[in-house]
Amino acid sequence: MRLWEKGIPTDQKVLAFTTGDDPQLDMQLIEYDCRASMAHARMLERVGVLSRSEARAICDVLAEIIDRAREGTFTISLEEEDGHTAIENYLTKRLGDTGKKIHTARSRNDQVVTALRLFYREQLDGIETRLQELIQAFQSFSRQWGTIPLPGYTHTRKAMPTTITIWVGAHQAAMEDNRLWLHTVQTLLDQCPAGTGAGFGIPLKIDREFLARELGFSRIQENPLHVQNSRGKLEGDILHVLSNIQLDLNRLASDLIFFTLPELGYFELPDAFTTGSSIMPHKKNPDVLELIRGYAHRLLGLEQEVRSLTANLISGYHRDLQLTKSAVFQAFSIVGQSLEMATLVVQHLQVNETRCRQALTPELYATEAVYRLVEKGMPFREAYRQVAEQFRKGR
Amino acid sequence: MRLWEKGIPTDQKVLAFTTGDDPQLDMQLIEYDCRASMAHARMLERVGVLSRSEARAICDVLAEIIDRAREGTFTISLEEEDGHTAIENYLTKRLGDTGKKIHTARSRNDQVVTALRLFYREQLDGIETRLQELIQAFQSFSRQWGTIPLPGYTHTRKAMPTTITIWVGAHQAAMEDNRLWLHTVQTLLDQCPAGTGAGFGIPLKIDREFLARELGFSRIQENPLHVQNSRGKLEGDILHVLSNIQLDLNRLASDLIFFTLPELGYFELPDAFTTGSSIMPHKKNPDVLELIRGYAHRLLGLEQEVRSLTANLISGYHRDLQLTKSAVFQAFSIVGQSLEMATLVVQHLQVNETRCRQALTPELYATEAVYRLVEKGMPFREAYRQVAEQFRKGR
Amino acid sequence: MRLWEKGIPTDQKVLAFTTGDDPQLDMQLIEYDCRASMAHARMLERVGVLSRSEARAICDVLAEIIDRAREGTFTISLEEEDGHTAIENYLTKRLGDTGKKIHTARSRNDQVVTALRLFYREQLDGIETRLQELIQAFQSFSRQWGTIPLPGYTHTRKAMPTTITIWVGAHQAAMEDNRLWLHTVQTLLDQCPAGTGAGFGIPLKIDREFLARELGFSRIQENPLHVQNSRGKLEGDILHVLSNIQLDLNRLASDLIFFTLPELGYFELPDAFTTGSSIMPHKKNPDVLELIRGYAHRLLGLEQEVRSLTANLISGYHRDLQLTKSAVFQAFSIVGQSLEMATLVVQHLQVNETRCRQALTPELYATEAVYRLVEKGMPFREAYRQVAEQFRKGR
Amino acid sequence: MRLWEKGIPTDQKVLAFTTGDDPQLDMQLIEYDCRASMAHARMLERVGVLSRSEARAICDVLAEIIDRAREGTFTISLEEEDGHTAIENYLTKRLGDTGKKIHTARSRNDQVVTALRLFYREQLDGIETRLQELIQAFQSFSRQWGTIPLPGYTHTRKAMPTTITIWVGAHQAAMEDNRLWLHTVQTLLDQCPAGTGAGFGIPLKIDREFLARELGFSRIQENPLHVQNSRGKLEGDILHVLSNIQLDLNRLASDLIFFTLPELGYFELPDAFTTGSSIMPHKKNPDVLELIRGYAHRLLGLEQEVRSLTANLISGYHRDLQLTKSAVFQAFSIVGQSLEMATLVVQHLQVNETRCRQALTPELYATEAVYRLVEKGMPFREAYRQVAEQFRKGR
Repeated sequence: MRLWEKGIPTDQKVLAFTTGDDPQLDMQLIEYDCRASMAHARMLERVGVLSRSEARAICDVLAEIIDRAREGTFTISLEEEDGHTAIENYLTKRLGDTGKKIHTARSRNDQVVTALRLFYREQLDGIETRLQELIQAFQSFSRQWGTIPLPGYTHTRKAMPTTITIWVGAHQAAMEDNRLWLHTVQTLLDQCPAGTGAGFGIPLKIDREFLARELGFSRIQENPLHVQNSRGKLEGDILHVLSNIQLDLNRLASDLIFFTLPELGYFELPDAFTTGSSIMPHKKNPDVLELIRGYAHRLLGLEQEVRSLTANLISGYHRDLQLTKSAVFQAFSIVGQSLEMATLVVQHLQVNETRCRQALTPELYATEAVYRLVEKGMPFREAYRQVAEQFRKGR
Repeated sequence: MRLWEKGIPTDQKVLAFTTGDDPQLDMQLIEYDCRASMAHARMLERVGVLSRSEARAICDVLAEIIDRAREGTFTISLEEEDGHTAIENYLTKRLGDTGKKIHTARSRNDQVVTALRLFYREQLDGIETRLQELIQAFQSFSRQWGTIPLPGYTHTRKAMPTTITIWVGAHQAAMEDNRLWLHTVQTLLDQCPAGTGAGFGIPLKIDREFLARELGFSRIQENPLHVQNSRGKLEGDILHVLSNIQLDLNRLASDLIFFTLPELGYFELPDAFTTGSSIMPHKKNPDVLELIRGYAHRLLGLEQEVRSLTANLISGYHRDLQLTKSAVFQAFSIVGQSLEMATLVVQHLQVNETRCRQALTPELYATEAVYRLVEKGMPFREAYRQVAEQFRKGR
Repeated sequence: MRLWEKGIPTDQKVLAFTTGDDPQLDMQLIEYDCRASMAHARMLERVGVLSRSEARAICDVLAEIIDRAREGTFTISLEEEDGHTAIENYLTKRLGDTGKKIHTARSRNDQVVTALRLFYREQLDGIETRLQELIQAFQSFSRQWGTIPLPGYTHTRKAMPTTITIWVGAHQAAMEDNRLWLHTVQTLLDQCPAGTGAGFGIPLKIDREFLARELGFSRIQENPLHVQNSRGKLEGDILHVLSNIQLDLNRLASDLIFFTLPELGYFELPDAFTTGSSIMPHKKNPDVLELIRGYAHRLLGLEQEVRSLTANLISGYHRDLQLTKSAVFQAFSIVGQSLEMATLVVQHLQVNETRCRQALTPELYATEAVYRLVEKGMPFREAYRQVAEQFRKGR
Repeated sequence: MRLWEKGIPTDQKVLAFTTGDDPQLDMQLIEYDCRASMAHARMLERVGVLSRSEARAICDVLAEIIDRAREGTFTISLEEEDGHTAIENYLTKRLGDTGKKIHTARSRNDQVVTALRLFYREQLDGIETRLQELIQAFQSFSRQWGTIPLPGYTHTRKAMPTTITIWVGAHQAAMEDNRLWLHTVQTLLDQCPAGTGAGFGIPLKIDREFLARELGFSRIQENPLHVQNSRGKLEGDILHVLSNIQLDLNRLASDLIFFTLPELGYFELPDAFTTGSSIMPHKKNPDVLELIRGYAHRLLGLEQEVRSLTANLISGYHRDLQLTKSAVFQAFSIVGQSLEMATLVVQHLQVNETRCRQALTPELYATEAVYRLVEKGMPFREAYRQVAEQFRKGR
């Protein structure tokens, strides 16, 4: 909506502005929100707020909402603003007074954190699966081409001989480090926030441990204000890990753009991964790699946004936090796709052994020449100077 | 599309990945691309590549595309990847060989830069209009409430008496500074890039001055490589200006969130601009202001993304640059909406004169007390110490 | 040096530019570099490059350098550019040919990574100690003031009653989460890079496991290219953890600046932590808190710098990486100092119980009123509407 | 100082923390502060606060301070915290009661803004001079080598033939765009803030127009609160312009690192601008270019820091703003040095004409082949397809 068009009443403009892209984003959360609401209903039964039949009726309707959301027939209207309201409205429409009881003992504040946390955990599992697939592609690549020698570069200048195994192993090791970060974030996410209300608890006896168990968390996040203060920070942590992955993919892409330069020709990218030019009929451009590379900057920007968002604010929920959703959702999508594209590239990449071997020009063995003198007893620094002198003369 | 679903062939995945959200984004560019293509057709007629009737036929179909785009019946398919291809396809479908001639003497590289520049110029005009409306709202506010005294704050602590006029005038002056930046960006954008091809010119005699005049540019951007190297940099400049505006709105929002605190009560926000809580029936939350505030961080993140994107890359076009579109388009939308919401807020904001006057507690006049002593001849630093001593005792 | 002064020869300018602030920064690394060199000498003895007496002589001189560095009598000249060269020169000056052997089987590339890693590990231990002290201060604060009620805020608006215990507990829990991140970074740093040369190994038989043990690492970092590619990434991880801490301190500072507002007066900051004004004799400004708050943005900027620095570059060392030193060193100093200042503030902070209790105005109990109706059997949403209605009328 | 050492009293720690690196940074400001104070003294004489002889005495001592600062014998002690206090103390020590009058009608808040603005204006002039020198070096380079052909690259792939003139012209045009931004910032800085006190004016009749004229400003910055709110924003604008310059230098450096690759060899960097390796005697590394490249990220980090620093804060001075000094001072130094180094590089750079010509391989003429068919009447898209087909077969 172009808000400044004439004739739209103020209330409508305010609603459109505050709602933003929440209705679209929340479609991804419906399932998680319903699952959390089912656990919540069972907990309310347990503490006596709902009867057994009320809880069952609520759970049945929630299961129905999940089905409709998967089919694409569940919708969130602009007036509802978000998925939480849409779900409660649906329950109330279907169950009357029973539906009006679902929001007992919770606040939208802890409700959204709970749904998000379930969603994040599943998304991160998906990222780890994709990361494992890339690691496997690296391993296959190493098995197939590993023994071929390759010039190693420092300062974007040929330095010393290395091998495909070393090169691809470095990328694999980077991804393995990322798994450690993924696990740390998962540990932090593995604290159940449900039951903390708006950050100050709920003035009613509830069973938070039960909620945690039902939802698959190892423990509860004790302090209710900490739950709210974690918003933004946990999202920043997720974005740090995702940025790390995308930055490592950026380096892989940078290596491949460089090593597939026709002037070097160490690697070859199949045509399926290149794109033509609208005026230069001979071009084969590495667009896939360039986009993987470029997305690293999107990730850094998203991380930056989320991390400065909460700075200079006091404790407790602020509406500003709503904006973190879009950043994290976008990041999951980009990194998931980039990992998959990188895996496809590695699976199809060819090594040109002839060009690799030709590139191992004599000066790359200068360091070895130094060490042959060292083995004969010459102090390193002297051997270095002697070989350097030979190179200077030889040019 | 979830790329990792089984059964999708590699080509399709590559296409989906490289295309990204271009088809949606390009819908906003269709009109500008068509306008640039009309000028291009007339230029091709002028240099003899098209006959008069061919040029006229092309322009007619382009006008038709603009109409269809406005109606929402022009579409860009995934296979077409972007609006430029969709337009050329449409022309060719309608005009046969004549349509195939439209891409003579241009590259998609200068074509997209030209369309973007036309779009940016119009968007920035829209931003300036909205900025002017906000300035007018500030002026009305000053006329209505200006003489009411207000405590001035430094370090988030009451400091000295000031007035509504001074307070609102500071926000107005900030927006006027932003106009200077808007004009600088407009000056930089006012260079016609059409006719520079992929960054190395076109091996055919063309008339770039004619293109510039037709498209409303004061001059051509001479160096073809500079046109490509400007991509990302100009977007970064636009984002700097837009971020400056949003940061100034962030300060306005921060002031209002603070001054409408019930504990202070200097200002009052009408109910239409506040939101309730899902569990606290008494709450009136300033969500509109919080979102205006929060979006400043989105803007900083977008700016960051675009500015690091091109770093460490050599001259000339890279596919990474495609990602800048989404950042700038999003920023225009956010800042346009935020300016309008801020204008509405200022138009409806109330000042509580009683609370303002009550807040002018005696210690705010300490500096004046110092100056009364100075006027009697006491050196400033001594007068300062004497008044400070009185305050210390008086507590 | 102002490089553009006339008369300075090009070589000198290049040297000054490439050296930058390395000589100053490296003074902090001398001790760690010497320790790593001692282990290296013992390893060279073990593999037969150095005799026992040579290794001992080298270790003795290295110990001497450590002593001189602590006393402040060891210097790095501009010509030496960095600490590594200064140490080798000193060894050679003192031991002649024996000194020239120390650089056998290593490169400045793995040498600097090793010294940095030892330094980082010790610095992070120091940060954790300071973090523990802050946690203890939170605990004492809770013991002393914990039961006092406090209004809880959402949207910077009073929301529901809470307690000092909950408030301070949220800050404590945030710091405890930070410990998890500190440990993850320590795990990543606990890989010995020594013996990997310039990223492609050393053409000489060496004992990397021995080096790791001597230097207190649990394992070696196997892949030599991964060692170089980790530079920048590990620094980014350290900065993420340090930024997280500083952002949590930023929130603590924001809370305290707000809660010590004279208009609220829940907390009181002793005079030792406030600063006066140069013209307003009555002012007591929370400068310490404002600087803690402001430094969070320095941290975000440093993190940003380091993380985009390596983007778009191919694998292997680049001189750009030298710039990461200054960022990380600065961050350790800021976060260490800020933690200590925050601890002092918490230790001296007073709670004004009267003002806290006065602030618990009736509307904060609205949610409780709803729950009393719920307990009587009214569905939550209806109870909510009824209480909301009462508030609307009561105003 | 390591603040956490035992035995340091709290007051000392607070002082050390709040003072930070101000004493060092302020040494660069002494001269500008003294100049502003001279104008202030003359203004106070004009409005009758100082007698003619008092004003003259103050100006004489301020001139003396400038001389001592240049000689390096004027110092700022930790207790004085900043240069402003040091100057007032010096005046009072030398002139007694007369010295105590200098702070009449000003606050440290407008005093520091005035001194900074004078300093910034001069620094920006210096940057523009250096930028002009680089433009001249580009022009000489073009005159010397301009007609040599060079392969133009898109997507880091050879695309079409271009020339040295076009390549260097693109870098020159980028720098000329930067001059426009420099002028815009200078226009914004050309508003005299003196006489606005702490943001709420001075309760005494003063002559702001006189101050502006004396200090070389075209106009006064009218709104006193706007003066304080401009802090951080103007620094962000300066950093945007400086980052733009450094990003353009980053691209120049990236081009040169790539074009001097031995595998390409289009350009040659003299030995004075390369650095060796500690273990590879043959290496010639482009460290100067890598540091110029890397510093662009420092600039982006500094800009980021300053721009998020003031977000989410209310109007008026906050101590957080002190941190912007270090960012801007550092940026001026880096960009000034980088411009000079880039100028030296361009002045000494060699073009290898043979390698350039050899690189113009046949496929670079594909676009020309298309246009030869277009000239014969074939529609562009068909000509394109025909040439593309030839290339596909020819491989």
